Amino acid sequence: MKQVPIGVSARHIHLSKEHIKLLFGPDYELQVLKELSQPGQFAAKETVTVVTPKGQIDKVRILGPARSRSQLEISRTDAFTLGIDPPVRESGHIEGTPGIRVIGPAGEVELEEGVIVAARHIHFHTDDAAKWGITDKQKLTVRIEGERAVTFEQVIARVSDQFALDMHIDTDEANAAGVKTGDIGFILS
Amino acid sequence: MKQVPIGVSARHIHLSKEHIKLLFGPDYELQVLKELSQPGQFAAKETVTVVTPKGQIDKVRILGPARSRSQLEISRTDAFTLGIDPPVRESGHIEGTPGIRVIGPAGEVELEEGVIVAARHIHFHTDDAAKWGITDKQKLTVRIEGERAVTFEQVIARVSDQFALDMHIDTDEANAAGVKTGDIGFILS
Repeated sequence: MKQVPIGVSARHIHLSKEHIKLLFGPDYELQVLKELSQPGQFAAKETVTVVTPKGQIDKVRILGPARSRSQLEISRTDAFTLGIDPPVRESGHIEGTPGIRVIGPAGEVELEEGVIVAARHIHFHTDDAAKWGITDKQKLTVRIEGERAVTFEQVIARVSDQFALDMHIDTDEANAAGVKTGDIGFILS
Repeated sequence: MKQVPIGVSARHIHLSKEHIKLLFGPDYELQVLKELSQPGQFAAKETVTVVTPKGQIDKVRILGPARSRSQLEISRTDAFTLGIDPPVRESGHIEGTPGIRVIGPAGEVELEEGVIVAARHIHFHTDDAAKWGITDKQKLTVRIEGERAVTFEQVIARVSDQFALDMHIDTDEANAAGVKTGDIGFILS
């Protein structure tokens, strides 16, 4: 069986260098709170507030390092709180997505676009993918056992020698399946 | 194909007659906001606030009519907000579940137990169940199509001549599957 560890992604934001400066001040550097499963990625100590005309969410965790474009990843539940309707997208595919106002301790930024509900996906190291015959962008089906057993389709394979094996689902998906970070999924096809 | 309409259950509370009196005043009668899919059931105009030492949720909708025991049904997401860990249970099976404080306009009630995450289930009229060979309490598997296609296992069949065909899932499950009330599920087995 092709087993994959599950990582539950809570809402978070990736920020560009420019936006980190605007929100936290010039020359500011994000502080590492915790290393994440993917090499080089980390949860920062810093958080921001995101605001729409209809709602607000405080303490949104920043994930580092800085990226070329800022991107807010939320659950559908969060989207209802904020009164917006972001599409389900792969990370980085933010064209035409809703924008949002981001508030930090030193300033604010109005993102023109960048709010998505992240499409569920699995990070494969190139070696794992080769061993299992899985290719980048392939759509997979993954079963999770338990009292809320669920099979997720449309799970996107992402393959790189920079990745560690990990399946990323959001909090809605984790709650629907009754799983937490460290639990196991089985790739069916 | 065995098709079933989906009804998404937002967080809600069922109250006993005694608790309605304590929360809204003696001789108070719940007002009907909207009839629900199950005959005789309704969303009331009234809402309450539920409170734990760690969190609070306002405007929790009351579903009527009154029941013998009060019961709060929330999503796992809500449970994190409230800092409690209710089990996944069938409606009415509240033994040993967490309690909660309920606040109404005329008073408060401390529920000793009664908070659950509702187990996903399908209401079948006796005729539908007979036609499809489905029996009460049977565990079913239901597939939902779409960009977040999901197959839910452990879906409990509930059969009664008082029921109308409807599959009830909570907001976490609906969001994970990308569905809304009125969408369709397919019973696979």
